[in-house]
Amino acid sequence: MDKILRIDMGADGGPKITETPLGDYAGLGGRAMTTTVVSREVPPLCHPLSAENKLVIAPGLLSGTIAAMSGRLSVGCKSPLTGGIKESNSGGQAAQVLARLGYAAIILEGKPKTDDIYKILIDKNGVKIVIDNSLKMLPNYDLVTKIRSEFGDKIACMSIGPAGEMMMNIASIACTDMELRPTRHAGRGGVGAVMGSKRVKAIVLDDSGMPMRTPKDPVKFKAANKVFTEGLLKHPVTGQALPAYGTNVLTNILNEAGGYPTNNFKEGRFAGAAKISGEAQAELEVKRGGLATHGCHRGCVIRCSGIYNDKDGHFLSKQPEYETVWSHGGHCGIDDLDSIAMLDFLDDNYGVDTIEMGVTIGVAMDAGLAKFGDAEAAINLVKEVGKGSPLGRILGSGAGVTGRVYGVERVPVVKNQAMPAYDPRAVKGIGVTYATSTMGADHTAGYCIATNILKVGGFVDPLKPEGQIELSRNLQIATAAIDSTGMCLFIAFAILDQPETFQALLDLLNSFYGLSLTGDSVVELGKKVLSTERDFNTRAGFTAMHDRLPRYFSTEPVAPHNVTFGVKDEDLDKVFAW
Amino acid sequence: MDKILRIDMGADGGPKITETPLGDYAGLGGRAMTTTVVSREVPPLCHPLSAENKLVIAPGLLSGTIAAMSGRLSVGCKSPLTGGIKESNSGGQAAQVLARLGYAAIILEGKPKTDDIYKILIDKNGVKIVIDNSLKMLPNYDLVTKIRSEFGDKIACMSIGPAGEMMMNIASIACTDMELRPTRHAGRGGVGAVMGSKRVKAIVLDDSGMPMRTPKDPVKFKAANKVFTEGLLKHPVTGQALPAYGTNVLTNILNEAGGYPTNNFKEGRFAGAAKISGEAQAELEVKRGGLATHGCHRGCVIRCSGIYNDKDGHFLSKQPEYETVWSHGGHCGIDDLDSIAMLDFLDDNYGVDTIEMGVTIGVAMDAGLAKFGDAEAAINLVKEVGKGSPLGRILGSGAGVTGRVYGVERVPVVKNQAMPAYDPRAVKGIGVTYATSTMGADHTAGYCIATNILKVGGFVDPLKPEGQIELSRNLQIATAAIDSTGMCLFIAFAILDQPETFQALLDLLNSFYGLSLTGDSVVELGKKVLSTERDFNTRAGFTAMHDRLPRYFSTEPVAPHNVTFGVKDEDLDKVFAW
Repeated sequence: MDKILRIDMGADGGPKITETPLGDYAGLGGRAMTTTVVSREVPPLCHPLSAENKLVIAPGLLSGTIAAMSGRLSVGCKSPLTGGIKESNSGGQAAQVLARLGYAAIILEGKPKTDDIYKILIDKNGVKIVIDNSLKMLPNYDLVTKIRSEFGDKIACMSIGPAGEMMMNIASIACTDMELRPTRHAGRGGVGAVMGSKRVKAIVLDDSGMPMRTPKDPVKFKAANKVFTEGLLKHPVTGQALPAYGTNVLTNILNEAGGYPTNNFKEGRFAGAAKISGEAQAELEVKRGGLATHGCHRGCVIRCSGIYNDKDGHFLSKQPEYETVWSHGGHCGIDDLDSIAMLDFLDDNYGVDTIEMGVTIGVAMDAGLAKFGDAEAAINLVKEVGKGSPLGRILGSGAGVTGRVYGVERVPVVKNQAMPAYDPRAVKGIGVTYATSTMGADHTAGYCIATNILKVGGFVDPLKPEGQIELSRNLQIATAAIDSTGMCLFIAFAILDQPETFQALLDLLNSFYGLSLTGDSVVELGKKVLSTERDFNTRAGFTAMHDRLPRYFSTEPVAPHNVTFGVKDEDLDKVFAW
Repeated sequence: MDKILRIDMGADGGPKITETPLGDYAGLGGRAMTTTVVSREVPPLCHPLSAENKLVIAPGLLSGTIAAMSGRLSVGCKSPLTGGIKESNSGGQAAQVLARLGYAAIILEGKPKTDDIYKILIDKNGVKIVIDNSLKMLPNYDLVTKIRSEFGDKIACMSIGPAGEMMMNIASIACTDMELRPTRHAGRGGVGAVMGSKRVKAIVLDDSGMPMRTPKDPVKFKAANKVFTEGLLKHPVTGQALPAYGTNVLTNILNEAGGYPTNNFKEGRFAGAAKISGEAQAELEVKRGGLATHGCHRGCVIRCSGIYNDKDGHFLSKQPEYETVWSHGGHCGIDDLDSIAMLDFLDDNYGVDTIEMGVTIGVAMDAGLAKFGDAEAAINLVKEVGKGSPLGRILGSGAGVTGRVYGVERVPVVKNQAMPAYDPRAVKGIGVTYATSTMGADHTAGYCIATNILKVGGFVDPLKPEGQIELSRNLQIATAAIDSTGMCLFIAFAILDQPETFQALLDLLNSFYGLSLTGDSVVELGKKVLSTERDFNTRAGFTAMHDRLPRYFSTEPVAPHNVTFGVKDEDLDKVFAW
């Protein structure tokens, strides 16, 4: 990971490949890398689909090592969805493979002048780019099948589906998992549209013949990894709840807490929650010969993923995540797991963010395009996206545009990005994160559910404004740092509660790079990433007025607690006043 | 004009009518009134279609008097199109009639809870509001025919078409002309959508039995009006060019100047310009028994309007304005006047802004939805808007959304509002106005064409950045003041060149109200209006970054002069630094 690969897709005579040393970008990984490159190299007022935007793909600092959970990939650019800076984070194999190939970042620049589409091949022999118009408009599953037939199954593949090619604002970039299925996605913010604007359909990564990355102090590194892994397996969330039921363990928990947004954020509890809960899902998966626990990349020990088979025992989709089950489930009044799994498959196949897609359908239901609870109608709406019909184009532009086009007043977005699966009125900490995150509404940017609901890292009452600013601030800082390591964010549960697990993470970084980072260094790194992102957004035209929830969250109480958001604007403005 | 009519459309038990004295709003008219009310009463972060937004309808200070040209109406709100403050200005009869009925403003507040639609009747006996669902989804021409059959022809009518009912971002409010046709529109910024959100279909105004408004000093007022009128008739623009050829006199002039945006702002000259010029249009109108000169409201002496008949001599539309001929013509590569007149009629009938509609079609052509020059396709696209099909919904959301939904990079909007008929690269003064106006891209906000091209009020070379900031600043200030008087903006040509005509305008105001306004007072009024609007926009989240043209105007030169915009960002930021 000592070089940067730049590909100028707009160069005269075809794409131009340049490999450079890290230079100014040395020491950066993951989100710190993507954010720093975007901030320095992308004009904040450029059109997100223009040649001036760049797509930056970066493994984390520990990706490609034997460290557990180190397989997260950061994808950064100016977001077509929010208009601000974006880091979209994905699991799957790409980060590990890319890191072992030695690249700290791939930077796609420029824009071809023709309509041809390209595939990029990176292996131990170097980089090749070829036009391959036979891939045009292939959905991700078909695409990967074709790529596999050409390159075998020792690869990782990043790709866009039809949504990305059509440059839809909700388009994702798919990353293959260990079974070479396009199930893990850099979903949020339309990063797939930026890849589509550069006419890159697929990036095929093959690390055959490349060694595991070696630490400066291999003995200490191995020891740290052991403590780190033990810590993860010991914690009740990462050692028990997530492996047993996946992220969908949250459905019953959030529903019980009255913070489960139902029927487009009209209520905080869903009558059908138990039917689509993680418990029900795991039971069904096992019964049908799927898997209720499974890792999405090499080195995962939490194994929160799974395999969801249809009633005949055939693969239907990967185990839909909690956010997906919610966005297509409770948010749309749908309580049928098979329909939700089908929607999850379609989303992955067309290449769209499952959160934005589901929230958009809920908004479309409020616009009268379908009835809440009508799963068949929801499936048909997503199919329109795949077709690129005018209706599909609307929905493929996300919840904000759909609300705008149909005159819907209640649209749960911040900075035009759809809210995830927690009502900000009933779980106020996450509301602070939604409002103030540089990313738009994003639960992963500062996952206050941990402390508001799961009582990880202490407890802050979710129904009271007190303490939420500090909670969100601290979690946003920690997250920005974790997102730079390549570590799965789920390690946060263990490192928040167990000092020795946090120390093990520091030891991993220190022994690998020969550093002497402390807790304070992590905080400084997180702050630096956030400040850089805030600065970009300011230059892109964002102000404090964009760090707000839509007004109806402050005026319309949500059952069962009948609470509004209630965190004051002036307090929101203190989140980054450190 | 000593009272304000407030109608709370959301009151329990049905709309609630309140009449109040002017209070704090005394002395305000037109844009000064709408801007002040919106700024004080509308939360800047509210959803434009929510109950919190207000629709403010205000005649100007001199409306309802015998003063020539005093029939302009201001309509204000938070704009669904731009998200900022909006004053949309219309001709037609409404301002004169409303002023004589004694109302300085109608303020529509709140939002009904049901789907019923309302008509509002205002006459000498007071105000009545009734549910009339028989009007639902009627296009403006049919609506007015129905209203006329009920109330006779001594009325003025303000109404929304299907676009307004569907709350489309480009929906206008139609005002009837002297022939009781819905041909004059408060077009820009989606004010019709706000009226639609309040479920008001039509406002019927009948001033039968109401006297002309009487000045404090009738003798001086009459004398001032005489000088004023003579000045207008003497000036070559208002006395000759506009009466002879209407606003469309500009087609040949702008095309000659190389500032006529062609095929979605790709070129500055259109091969078909002569075929759709004001000269060709006037000749055709006269030949077919229409009118090449005509006033849109009582008291108009410029008479820049006209009547456009079809080839069989039947009314097709009012004479399409220059901006409309351009947006549907050169901008879309269409050079057929009959098609353009049909598009004008459809726009008026569905109730959409002709500028935004035409620019949107050009963007849709760039997206591949139709070919440049295909008039039939353009007509079909506008018909989709009337139907409210998914495609129509996209187009009805304006150029910005259409570009976003189809991934089009080159979209000529500022603050999401489409640019009018002048290329900002070849006429840099208007570019400064587009960039910095509180309204989004808007030629009327500071019509630098006057001095850049028509050499009215001096001359500033349109191809050089020098002097454009001062020019736009001064014209924006003057315009904000004129928009507050109820005067047609076209008086500006005469008052800029002829000091005695400007003095006559001051004399009209002074003798009517017993004031002693000077030129400085006018400047102060204009500055105050602009500052109030800027303050609202700041509170709505706008920054200097929103006072910018899309970047391609700075990077891609336009033929025939092969110039980019070239006015520096830091200079744009000085427009309001007075």
